[in-house]
Amino acid sequence: VTCRVGLVGVGTVGGGVAELLLDDAARLRERTGGIELKLVAIAERDEGRMAPFRKAGVACHADAAELIARPDVDVVVELIGGTGAAKRVILGALRAGKSVVTANKHLLAEAATEIVREAREHNAALGFSASVCGGVPVLLALRTGLVANQIESVIGIVNGTCNYILTRMTASGTTYRDALGEAQDKGYAEADPTLDVEGHDSAHKLAILASLAFRTPVDLSAVSCEGIAALESVDLRYADELGYVVKLLAIGKRTTNGGAHIELRVHPTLLPKDHPLAAVNGVFNAVEVTGHAVGRVMLFGRGAGRWPTASNVVADLVEIARGSAAQAGDPLAFWTDERRLAVAPAGETRSRFYVRFTVKDEYGVLGHIAKVLGEHRVSIASVMQKEPHEPALDASVPIVVLTHEAREADFRAALATIDQHDYATQRSVFLRIEEA
Amino acid sequence: VTCRVGLVGVGTVGGGVAELLLDDAARLRERTGGIELKLVAIAERDEGRMAPFRKAGVACHADAAELIARPDVDVVVELIGGTGAAKRVILGALRAGKSVVTANKHLLAEAATEIVREAREHNAALGFSASVCGGVPVLLALRTGLVANQIESVIGIVNGTCNYILTRMTASGTTYRDALGEAQDKGYAEADPTLDVEGHDSAHKLAILASLAFRTPVDLSAVSCEGIAALESVDLRYADELGYVVKLLAIGKRTTNGGAHIELRVHPTLLPKDHPLAAVNGVFNAVEVTGHAVGRVMLFGRGAGRWPTASNVVADLVEIARGSAAQAGDPLAFWTDERRLAVAPAGETRSRFYVRFTVKDEYGVLGHIAKVLGEHRVSIASVMQKEPHEPALDASVPIVVLTHEAREADFRAALATIDQHDYATQRSVFLRIEEA
Repeated sequence: VTCRVGLVGVGTVGGGVAELLLDDAARLRERTGGIELKLVAIAERDEGRMAPFRKAGVACHADAAELIARPDVDVVVELIGGTGAAKRVILGALRAGKSVVTANKHLLAEAATEIVREAREHNAALGFSASVCGGVPVLLALRTGLVANQIESVIGIVNGTCNYILTRMTASGTTYRDALGEAQDKGYAEADPTLDVEGHDSAHKLAILASLAFRTPVDLSAVSCEGIAALESVDLRYADELGYVVKLLAIGKRTTNGGAHIELRVHPTLLPKDHPLAAVNGVFNAVEVTGHAVGRVMLFGRGAGRWPTASNVVADLVEIARGSAAQAGDPLAFWTDERRLAVAPAGETRSRFYVRFTVKDEYGVLGHIAKVLGEHRVSIASVMQKEPHEPALDASVPIVVLTHEAREADFRAALATIDQHDYATQRSVFLRIEEA
Repeated sequence: VTCRVGLVGVGTVGGGVAELLLDDAARLRERTGGIELKLVAIAERDEGRMAPFRKAGVACHADAAELIARPDVDVVVELIGGTGAAKRVILGALRAGKSVVTANKHLLAEAATEIVREAREHNAALGFSASVCGGVPVLLALRTGLVANQIESVIGIVNGTCNYILTRMTASGTTYRDALGEAQDKGYAEADPTLDVEGHDSAHKLAILASLAFRTPVDLSAVSCEGIAALESVDLRYADELGYVVKLLAIGKRTTNGGAHIELRVHPTLLPKDHPLAAVNGVFNAVEVTGHAVGRVMLFGRGAGRWPTASNVVADLVEIARGSAAQAGDPLAFWTDERRLAVAPAGETRSRFYVRFTVKDEYGVLGHIAKVLGEHRVSIASVMQKEPHEPALDASVPIVVLTHEAREADFRAALATIDQHDYATQRSVFLRIEEA
């Protein structure tokens, strides 16, 4: 079986895919029992990148529309990124009846419902395994390996930049700013790191993960999102003393909260040190999926980079060549507006909380804090009151409280009340806790 | 699309599969976009188990041959275990042109080549995702998600019983015997634990993992195998002091060792504490796969039990129903004698070693040990000589050595020489080291 591939974009990832297709063809044919992935054309704006492809007998186009129009292209691989031209390429290819493979998480998070509709309408296959966590086969597992399960939750460390920064802050006690600088020096963070550190990239990936886990379209705007830029190293130290690490988690959960069916949130989170995700350090990614039959499964690996991502793109191509994606049943049938599950608003979600109050060192303050929390149906699991790591000029002291599970809106209301009091010398700082 | 299933054996796992098919049918249809898995018949020797199936309108046979002969059965699921009747069921079904799903690792490790040959001859699909690591989708990942990769190694903690025992020995310093008793009390170990603690169960799983990873048939006899029954807790303590944990690992590696292409071994192993597999504790399983493109990927989850295993069996059924297993290309084409890769003999493999000598506390002993190791091309990375944890009656002392990478046959020859000397009061004890 031969599958003829047209590749739009031969930059970092696209160049890797091209190399796997051109140089590893024999091995790939052998591993798949006879599937031939033939790179017939590329589309690339940078003329300088075309030379090696011309030499290898691959047709080169400056305009992706020409590539899409070629009758000898069966599958179009979009690897230019962004949400403008990439969307036109993908929709154009699907409308021409070509199958499409993409790693474009940002675009999928924003426009997957439209893209899936177009694919189903034209009976074209859509592969996007590489759009979340690089080479980690987590989307594949959700689509096929765990298909027998009602998924209860999907919880991931899906942004290597943030995980690197948090790992450094934890290991060496450095500030967020210094750790970010280090990440930039090592090439793990962009000059403008906003998309990563504000949690947006994690939100994109969560939207895609949750769609497949819960078999529903997800609106990116339904994902509540907090990044790591405001984190203070003192809270990582206290978390450590209490037996926790702080990770930026993307959390999707099935819920029976009011009329909502799922909750979707990205935020820095305390994880018990013996949680499987707690040991995921540096630029690695990992996703824990809990299914009603399988229990907890975790997948771990490199979340980005040329080769891991190219690995997943080629796996999608093999699957399309094998014909499974277009076979009996319609694995993306759920991706329609009619099948959309309601998402719980941020205030309605429940979790345990870590909170650090900074207060005057006066008699009765702790008692008052406990009273206000209780009035808001928040019960205290433990309290740590101690000398500050660095004595404050105003002699104020930190009080760290871990709560039992509470409704977020109630908890926030309690903090607002406490922060108004005279004894509060700084605004309270809180983080959510995810238990094992 | 409807796929009609005949289930042979409705014990622990079979009963779970039946329950998923009967009770979760609507949800499954929805998750798969319209695939209907219909349980039409069971075969079961225990008459007492048939009642609920009769009531649900499922045909019940005492004889599996009758089930296989039914024209309304498309796929036969074998879940009786063992290597006798199970083999007859599987071969009988394949010869009748039925596809087969099985979780029978022992049988596959012994007879996969014969079974695969029969499946290919009759153009029948063969699903065995549940045969390794229960619900962890590691075989699926090797077959499809990582298909673009030349797999360099596959390293797993694949036996929950052994991992539970080692976790207990490490955490509480108990002896092997006490930890085994604890595991038996908790139902994690059988009354006769031989198959688990001697490493045979891990060897079965490694044979299957390595077949898919390296695309070769594997003879079970080519897997070198050591269990955990001889482990002494003192070595776990020393390992801990040196920054390692001890795990029973199943290790498959690509090698260019002489004429061999792969090495296959099961043995207790020192792992650095920051290795992703080092944090896998209790009855959990995990497999780390390293591919030339994807780098390191780890999959983690429950390795056994009714529901995790049933989850993977149903995933195989969905895949067969979808038709992908019988599609273009032949994913098991490699599983023939002609495609068999040569396996390195145990003595030819290379690794770092931990070794504990027990010697008379005399001048010059360490120097002599170093000399003998050097003569056998084994170089020392570090030495720990200290007071024994419990003073020995004969005043002998332990010397713990970590070596650099060495050929196993050389290392063993050095130990044999050292152990013959008068200063050696006990036989040396060694473990292999797997670095991150």
